[in-house]
Amino acid sequence: MQKPLGITMGCPAGIGPEIILKYCTDDPSLMDKAIILGDLTIIKKAQDILKTTIPFNTYTPGEPLRSNHLNIIPVSNFSTLKHQFGLSDKQCGLSSAQYIETGVQLIDQGVISGLVTCPISKAAINSAGYNFPGHTEMLASLTNASQVVMMMAGDSLRVTLATVHCAFSDVVHQLTTESIAKLIETTNKSLQIDFGIEQPVLGVAGLNPHAGEDKLFGDEEEKIIQPAVTHATQQGIKAFGPFPPDTVFYKAAKGEFDAVICMYHDQGLIPFKLLHFEDGVNVTLGLSIVRTSVDHGTAYDIAGKGVADFNSLKAATELAQNIVLNRKINIQ
Amino acid sequence: MQKPLGITMGCPAGIGPEIILKYCTDDPSLMDKAIILGDLTIIKKAQDILKTTIPFNTYTPGEPLRSNHLNIIPVSNFSTLKHQFGLSDKQCGLSSAQYIETGVQLIDQGVISGLVTCPISKAAINSAGYNFPGHTEMLASLTNASQVVMMMAGDSLRVTLATVHCAFSDVVHQLTTESIAKLIETTNKSLQIDFGIEQPVLGVAGLNPHAGEDKLFGDEEEKIIQPAVTHATQQGIKAFGPFPPDTVFYKAAKGEFDAVICMYHDQGLIPFKLLHFEDGVNVTLGLSIVRTSVDHGTAYDIAGKGVADFNSLKAATELAQNIVLNRKINIQ
Repeated sequence: MQKPLGITMGCPAGIGPEIILKYCTDDPSLMDKAIILGDLTIIKKAQDILKTTIPFNTYTPGEPLRSNHLNIIPVSNFSTLKHQFGLSDKQCGLSSAQYIETGVQLIDQGVISGLVTCPISKAAINSAGYNFPGHTEMLASLTNASQVVMMMAGDSLRVTLATVHCAFSDVVHQLTTESIAKLIETTNKSLQIDFGIEQPVLGVAGLNPHAGEDKLFGDEEEKIIQPAVTHATQQGIKAFGPFPPDTVFYKAAKGEFDAVICMYHDQGLIPFKLLHFEDGVNVTLGLSIVRTSVDHGTAYDIAGKGVADFNSLKAATELAQNIVLNRKINIQ
Repeated sequence: MQKPLGITMGCPAGIGPEIILKYCTDDPSLMDKAIILGDLTIIKKAQDILKTTIPFNTYTPGEPLRSNHLNIIPVSNFSTLKHQFGLSDKQCGLSSAQYIETGVQLIDQGVISGLVTCPISKAAINSAGYNFPGHTEMLASLTNASQVVMMMAGDSLRVTLATVHCAFSDVVHQLTTESIAKLIETTNKSLQIDFGIEQPVLGVAGLNPHAGEDKLFGDEEEKIIQPAVTHATQQGIKAFGPFPPDTVFYKAAKGEFDAVICMYHDQGLIPFKLLHFEDGVNVTLGLSIVRTSVDHGTAYDIAGKGVADFNSLKAATELAQNIVLNRKINIQ
């Protein structure tokens, strides 16, 4: 029997509940392959807003999925009166974190094959005592992962980042040959194992315009990046570069590279969001478990209005299924 | 009578000659609207390589264009034996510079309406004693322009840059409120005059990821960029931002902004080349004359092989014609 995926509902005040229902309505086969870790009251509230008529089943781990029903594990139990879409609080943060914790436990117990996460609020989980900047760090802690890497993945482009949430002026100080070499290695390994690409081809972006143009504009290519590429190729990894950043993404989108190794957040995210604003997936590499996530936030400004787009959730779920298949961990 | 445009042939060893002929073959009406500032020997050599049969006319300024002929002003006079595609030298640099000088003179004399430039080599013009980093600076000097701005323009996206060819680590030191404010003003004015957009809407990109996310990652948005946006809006310019850089280009490409004001080279060039690798145009704003350019280099590696793509030259020529029309300087 195929193991289902677990989809966390994300922040109860966010758009998670409604995008799950929209996705279900668009593709009812989702109900045969995923269970929801969330809150029945809130899912029902979203159902009323959307005027959908999906039947629900309170799922008990170990039982088979109830067919033609959306199987939900009610991790939290909100009161209708105390919940409002768009207004997050400590209780929302606590529940958001508990959906994730339950997800990891269910993977350990062999109930689900992997985790797809809907968006949470950093402020809300922090107010509930979970001091993580986001999902990625929380999952790394729950699974004792030593190094995790955020990959943004879409049909045309995959990017991984050597530095993430730091000031532009700190990027040069944070970049090291060691961390870039490790990033190339983790990206390569994940493309092999999770994406089933036997011999991935990686494009490594430079840091400076024209990749420094022979050190006319900066020397980090020669001093920091090139040694990491050389190290990787010595390990048999097909890594090339450092390339001028303004053309490497075009080449990757044309099919020349399976992923681009980026030096900083916007170097990777600008081209990625340009191509995959609506269907981008955030994949955490370096975890023992399979985890993909939507590529957007809680969107409190539109939560509960029924207008949120479910395509990123759909893409995240489909990618998680592919990774599960490639890792051959889909069978119970 | 419509004034023709002038198209400079660019470096004689580059792909300029062949893309001009390819464009002419694809669209013979080019011959009725542009004259070439270049070298007859080399154009003929390119014609032999391409096996095209375009008839040439040695054009004398003041005379009408000879119809169904490619009208060429032979600014240089290469010997076939001394020229080789792909191998640039001092003579190539000298001639490249002379095509540009002649172009500016012909605009002054009212012979041509504007200039479209094919690629030159910085090294070659420097070796001939022209100490400019490129076309833009040389044209600024020839026309006594005080401030010039490079805009990259395409159908989906236009970007202008607050810093250009400097190391990544120097960007924060080069950005000033004054230069960003001036850039917003010049971009706005050019969109009105050259692009015929009555009230342009400008998106200003931040510098840091998430535009600093309330100063969590850098404070340049608040200290440097926001005051420039405020100054512009006080002048009646519709400038908005600073926006998170990873979404502003998506919004612009969707039509929300007429141009994006970028803080550094790759911030603008990465998304621009992703969308307009083949048909991007480089426009110089702030010049008294009209000047557009192809968005690529001399490509010595493929020069003389007949494989170069002419689409950027086509887009540059069409844009120059539009600017000429908008500036109402097209009639002799």
